[in-house]
Amino acid sequence: QRQLAADDSLENLAQENQILWLDIPGVHDSVLLKKVARRFDIHPIAAENIQHTGQRPKADEYEDQLFLLLHMLTWNGEEKTVETEQVSIIAGKGYVISFQEHPGDVFDPVRRRISEGLGRVRRMGADYLSYSLADAVVDNYFLVMEDLQEEFEELEEQVLFEDGPDPSAKVHSLTRELLSLRRAVWPMREAASALMRGQIPAISEEVQIFFRDLYDHIVQIIDWIELMRDSLKGLMDSYQSRVGNSTNAIMRVLTIVATIFIPLTFIVGIYGMNFQRMPELSWPLGYPMVMALMALVALGMLFYFKKKKWL
Amino acid sequence: QRQLAADDSLENLAQENQILWLDIPGVHDSVLLKKVARRFDIHPIAAENIQHTGQRPKADEYEDQLFLLLHMLTWNGEEKTVETEQVSIIAGKGYVISFQEHPGDVFDPVRRRISEGLGRVRRMGADYLSYSLADAVVDNYFLVMEDLQEEFEELEEQVLFEDGPDPSAKVHSLTRELLSLRRAVWPMREAASALMRGQIPAISEEVQIFFRDLYDHIVQIIDWIELMRDSLKGLMDSYQSRVGNSTNAIMRVLTIVATIFIPLTFIVGIYGMNFQRMPELSWPLGYPMVMALMALVALGMLFYFKKKKWL
Amino acid sequence: QRQLAADDSLENLAQENQILWLDIPGVHDSVLLKKVARRFDIHPIAAENIQHTGQRPKADEYEDQLFLLLHMLTWNGEEKTVETEQVSIIAGKGYVISFQEHPGDVFDPVRRRISEGLGRVRRMGADYLSYSLADAVVDNYFLVMEDLQEEFEELEEQVLFEDGPDPSAKVHSLTRELLSLRRAVWPMREAASALMRGQIPAISEEVQIFFRDLYDHIVQIIDWIELMRDSLKGLMDSYQSRVGNSTNAIMRVLTIVATIFIPLTFIVGIYGMNFQRMPELSWPLGYPMVMALMALVALGMLFYFKKKKWL
Amino acid sequence: QRQLAADDSLENLAQENQILWLDIPGVHDSVLLKKVARRFDIHPIAAENIQHTGQRPKADEYEDQLFLLLHMLTWNGEEKTVETEQVSIIAGKGYVISFQEHPGDVFDPVRRRISEGLGRVRRMGADYLSYSLADAVVDNYFLVMEDLQEEFEELEEQVLFEDGPDPSAKVHSLTRELLSLRRAVWPMREAASALMRGQIPAISEEVQIFFRDLYDHIVQIIDWIELMRDSLKGLMDSYQSRVGNSTNAIMRVLTIVATIFIPLTFIVGIYGMNFQRMPELSWPLGYPMVMALMALVALGMLFYFKKKKWL
Amino acid sequence: QRQLAADDSLENLAQENQILWLDIPGVHDSVLLKKVARRFDIHPIAAENIQHTGQRPKADEYEDQLFLLLHMLTWNGEEKTVETEQVSIIAGKGYVISFQEHPGDVFDPVRRRISEGLGRVRRMGADYLSYSLADAVVDNYFLVMEDLQEEFEELEEQVLFEDGPDPSAKVHSLTRELLSLRRAVWPMREAASALMRGQIPAISEEVQIFFRDLYDHIVQIIDWIELMRDSLKGLMDSYQSRVGNSTNAIMRVLTIVATIFIPLTFIVGIYGMNFQRMPELSWPLGYPMVMALMALVALGMLFYFKKKKWL
Repeated sequence: QRQLAADDSLENLAQENQILWLDIPGVHDSVLLKKVARRFDIHPIAAENIQHTGQRPKADEYEDQLFLLLHMLTWNGEEKTVETEQVSIIAGKGYVISFQEHPGDVFDPVRRRISEGLGRVRRMGADYLSYSLADAVVDNYFLVMEDLQEEFEELEEQVLFEDGPDPSAKVHSLTRELLSLRRAVWPMREAASALMRGQIPAISEEVQIFFRDLYDHIVQIIDWIELMRDSLKGLMDSYQSRVGNSTNAIMRVLTIVATIFIPLTFIVGIYGMNFQRMPELSWPLGYPMVMALMALVALGMLFYFKKKKWL
Repeated sequence: QRQLAADDSLENLAQENQILWLDIPGVHDSVLLKKVARRFDIHPIAAENIQHTGQRPKADEYEDQLFLLLHMLTWNGEEKTVETEQVSIIAGKGYVISFQEHPGDVFDPVRRRISEGLGRVRRMGADYLSYSLADAVVDNYFLVMEDLQEEFEELEEQVLFEDGPDPSAKVHSLTRELLSLRRAVWPMREAASALMRGQIPAISEEVQIFFRDLYDHIVQIIDWIELMRDSLKGLMDSYQSRVGNSTNAIMRVLTIVATIFIPLTFIVGIYGMNFQRMPELSWPLGYPMVMALMALVALGMLFYFKKKKWL
Repeated sequence: QRQLAADDSLENLAQENQILWLDIPGVHDSVLLKKVARRFDIHPIAAENIQHTGQRPKADEYEDQLFLLLHMLTWNGEEKTVETEQVSIIAGKGYVISFQEHPGDVFDPVRRRISEGLGRVRRMGADYLSYSLADAVVDNYFLVMEDLQEEFEELEEQVLFEDGPDPSAKVHSLTRELLSLRRAVWPMREAASALMRGQIPAISEEVQIFFRDLYDHIVQIIDWIELMRDSLKGLMDSYQSRVGNSTNAIMRVLTIVATIFIPLTFIVGIYGMNFQRMPELSWPLGYPMVMALMALVALGMLFYFKKKKWL
Repeated sequence: QRQLAADDSLENLAQENQILWLDIPGVHDSVLLKKVARRFDIHPIAAENIQHTGQRPKADEYEDQLFLLLHMLTWNGEEKTVETEQVSIIAGKGYVISFQEHPGDVFDPVRRRISEGLGRVRRMGADYLSYSLADAVVDNYFLVMEDLQEEFEELEEQVLFEDGPDPSAKVHSLTRELLSLRRAVWPMREAASALMRGQIPAISEEVQIFFRDLYDHIVQIIDWIELMRDSLKGLMDSYQSRVGNSTNAIMRVLTIVATIFIPLTFIVGIYGMNFQRMPELSWPLGYPMVMALMALVALGMLFYFKKKKWL
Repeated sequence: QRQLAADDSLENLAQENQILWLDIPGVHDSVLLKKVARRFDIHPIAAENIQHTGQRPKADEYEDQLFLLLHMLTWNGEEKTVETEQVSIIAGKGYVISFQEHPGDVFDPVRRRISEGLGRVRRMGADYLSYSLADAVVDNYFLVMEDLQEEFEELEEQVLFEDGPDPSAKVHSLTRELLSLRRAVWPMREAASALMRGQIPAISEEVQIFFRDLYDHIVQIIDWIELMRDSLKGLMDSYQSRVGNSTNAIMRVLTIVATIFIPLTFIVGIYGMNFQRMPELSWPLGYPMVMALMALVALGMLFYFKKKKWL
């Protein structure tokens, strides 16, 4: 295996008895892309898919070429968003070409394993190298999910124990990230399924087992995403229930205070009237009697609230 | 390829060694339709489907003819609605007939590609031309989705950051548009799937690959629709949560103010009574003592609210 | 084709070289039913299904007989309900027997087409006649759906623009009608699917194409039902959101008025007390000073509400 | 056919040229069960399933034996619960053994049909007898559903028309019964599907048609359950909407009364103050002027509420 | 069968004519794991799955080895959580190797059955031993579900009858446990399905029947989980409905008390004003007339509330 700078003379490649890995960082140099497409006889639809990013992940076969389109995901911790980058892989007899949307070090682990002479990349064919590249992409998903899980747990802590502020904006944005994640991962499940079932002849049976493992990892990611979405929904429900209960408790206090004092205030209002003829006003025990009456009214109400279990 | 005005003599067509593309703008001229149907031996059910618009999108085969029924969508920016137009395509050996509900320029890009001699339309058969027409229709969906996405993001901005008015009417209408969109696109998925899997012999293997790409685009649209629907639901939830919290905050203030002042008002009411015998009234320190009592009551309540975390 | 009164001598039928259509209006005359069943060798399970109405729609085959069980639907505009009637069709070599739950004119359009000598009913076999009868039933669904759509749009108008009364009872009843409609139509999809796929040999390939069209119509009905259910749910959400917002607005007014005046009323209460020693009362500027104090309190509160965006 | 008491000598059975039906009421006599299992060579897993009740309904085949496990349901009208009883059927060449969890008369209709010499039980084989037993169980489901339907309609009446009390407890318990019903019926669908499709050779083609009918009945039950669950959900929504609206109406009255009188009470409070210098108090028209002012304030507020459509 | 301590010399094993069961408690001794993997020729992907716990349950086949990966669950009663432990089983010709994440007594029942010479473990092959181990794991699920059921019923009791505190935190945590349970059990369904259908040749037909029983148990667990989730949702709804109704009842009392007394307090306020000219004040019957007026107002309001069914 050799890796080439993008401006190498493409004509001299892949003549040797090795597996050639051509890594093209950035798909915006359309001249280079056209050169590569002509040299390796890439199907025009595949070529279009490679260049126009934003495609759905897929695993297709064009004659004797395997075409993998994946979404590389990275968690942007500052903006709290998942960033998507399209990665395409073309694998034919004796060569693998990988296209990255932006230059980056996605495939570093694979490169390291190759240069260290370890792993099976050297020993096995282009299909295994394709698997290794796809595996490097999927391994990254677990890192992204762990970041999201951390965000989620922080939020959960806040909502359930700390009487924190309204989490709905954060829940909304986390859900949005999960939805876009699912949008990237879900079609990869189909793709991996096609690859592991031998629907694509370019994959040898030996490598199918590896794609079965990749499939398991993708399903695990999907399960994780679904679990987190359900948990987010549950979290929101808990929050709303807590807020509702708090409102309820406040309502209760207002009701009890208001319901007790409003009639009492009315009674004292009566004896604040300035009528010339109000016999009670001149009774010697008028004042204590009114006070006693009001105490009775208040106690009666408290008793009623107690009975209704509102207190 | 030649294109004909609708009133051309149909009898002389398709005798040459070319692919004939007959584009019929408007399906309400039933005499012309009958003429075309007789000349090209269109199955009566297909003919009925072409004329009675409002059918479900589908891909069927009648003997050696391919019948495609699609929905052309356009975004009406003023009324904020998605408008649907039925487009039918009949493809046989050496000819393609397209029917549009209303005269329009849906197929302009295809026409341009043909007249420029570019593209594969000239080189390949009637099946590829059918694909090109279907592709032109599906490409338009992305434009419609982008308009809807813009509407959505404007709404999101309003709801999440600007404390805007009740978005439920807009959410309702946007959801309705999405539902009618989904209703148009969902059956096209099945149709494209049938076309790409070789279930319809009229499609050559070479063109099946193009229909596979079309299928991917349709699935992308469906994913996008689902994502937006989920997001709209989430947006509505966020809005309701915000409104609920605002109500709650208002309730809290009302409660605190009312709960503190209602008992105090009762106390001042007591000493506003006109009983002749109210010893407190003549105490030299009666007034300051009552004021102190009321301050105590108010402070006690504030302390209680603080403890309950209502303040 | 001949059509017979129900009390005809059944023994002499179907000997001729024609297709016999026997239409039996009402399935409660069990003697007649038994006679028909014996004469045409109807499977006992089919016979039971015909007589005991309330069965699930289905398409079955008993030896060389096709058995279709359909639900005829009619919209009762007064009671605003969808009424269901069971229609069964038995088709064998040279004869079609239709059973209606109640006498009615469901099959009038078919009868008219036959008597006018138009259409394909005369030319084609018993399978095409069965299709025509089923088609007449399904065509009726569109009329029912249009009535429901009208009901829905009236309701929508009311809810979204007219500030009408609580629509939940109407939404509830419309949803119930939709659910019972879906219960009738959904199994017909399976049945039509079996008929169009050639799973039932009694259907010739030529007629399968017609059943494919029927299938498309049924799926269109189902899509419509689902769309309306989703819209009803959305309508209810809009209504609740509107009611919630209205409650909120009312709350706001109550809070602001109460929160401003409750403290002021307390202040005027203080100076209504009858203590002998209240120095403020004899201050020359006591009254205007208190009035100014109260204005200050009120303005402070208004300012606070403004800041909180509650006003 | 003969039916045996459970303590009969099992060794002498099934030697004759008849179909033997052995009905074992109660599965807790493990000695008898072991005897039967040995005599009829029942697979140990089937035997375990028979004895340990609470299994999932299923249709399995062990070598040449058909094993049916069903749930018999009965509606307990007093406790308003659906009671489940496990019924197992083993059918082999020339014999059918049925096991009931508790002694009961589940199979009475079958027994009656046999003893009356009617029906097909006598004429046909062990597979038809198994069908008859299963049919008796499924027929009972319709009775249970009718009881539940009655409960539901009573509840609906209460909620929609009678302004009854909170139905949520009843809805909760009815939903729970429906859920446990669904849990019993759903797996029977799979079982009946396997039996009607000829996946189990012990079922003759003639009897498969009967199992197809059984399948239709089970699907009808499932549809009914789903419809009732949806209706219950809708009922709950209607109730909550009604309660919400009622709360809203009450709020409105409180708001209007409070909002009008709170400012007025403040005004009368002002002129209840005891300041020595309050010029208005000595104006000859002071009292009527204040009364007029208050009337103006009240009318202004009523006008405002009218405009806001709160009144 | 023999069981070995983990540090036994692996080279001498499995030479005899017996089935070897090697139970490795703890997968963190990577030297031992490598030794075992080399000795038994375990596929590198299987070996990785065994060591890196947290994998998805699965049943795979590597050449002639069966690889089972299961989740052992235990209910931690104190922390109210379900704890997951990964258990892997490798079965080849003549040997079964089980790996537990942590040392424990999961397989005690199997061990006991073997040592007692009972059961079929001794008689049958490695595939049956694998089944026994998997069965021991699944049997444990029922214990966990019973613990969860108990938790649920306690909660239900609290919510429905005891007017207990907000159950949303408990519901949230119980739902979370159910979700993680489902995440463990759901993929086991697929695995058991593959094993019972003979998709994996290492399983003899005789043992497939046992795996069919295992499959039934797993589906029963899944049904149970779904039922409990639905019930939890229903419970939460009931609670919220109860809380909502309680709030409503409180609101009603507040409204009635406030609405009656606020106008009365206003009236008494009027006659508390100190205007010099208030003719009513000097009327002999002024006081009783005002009292009567207020009684009339109060009665009118009570009558209105009665009519509106708010009382």
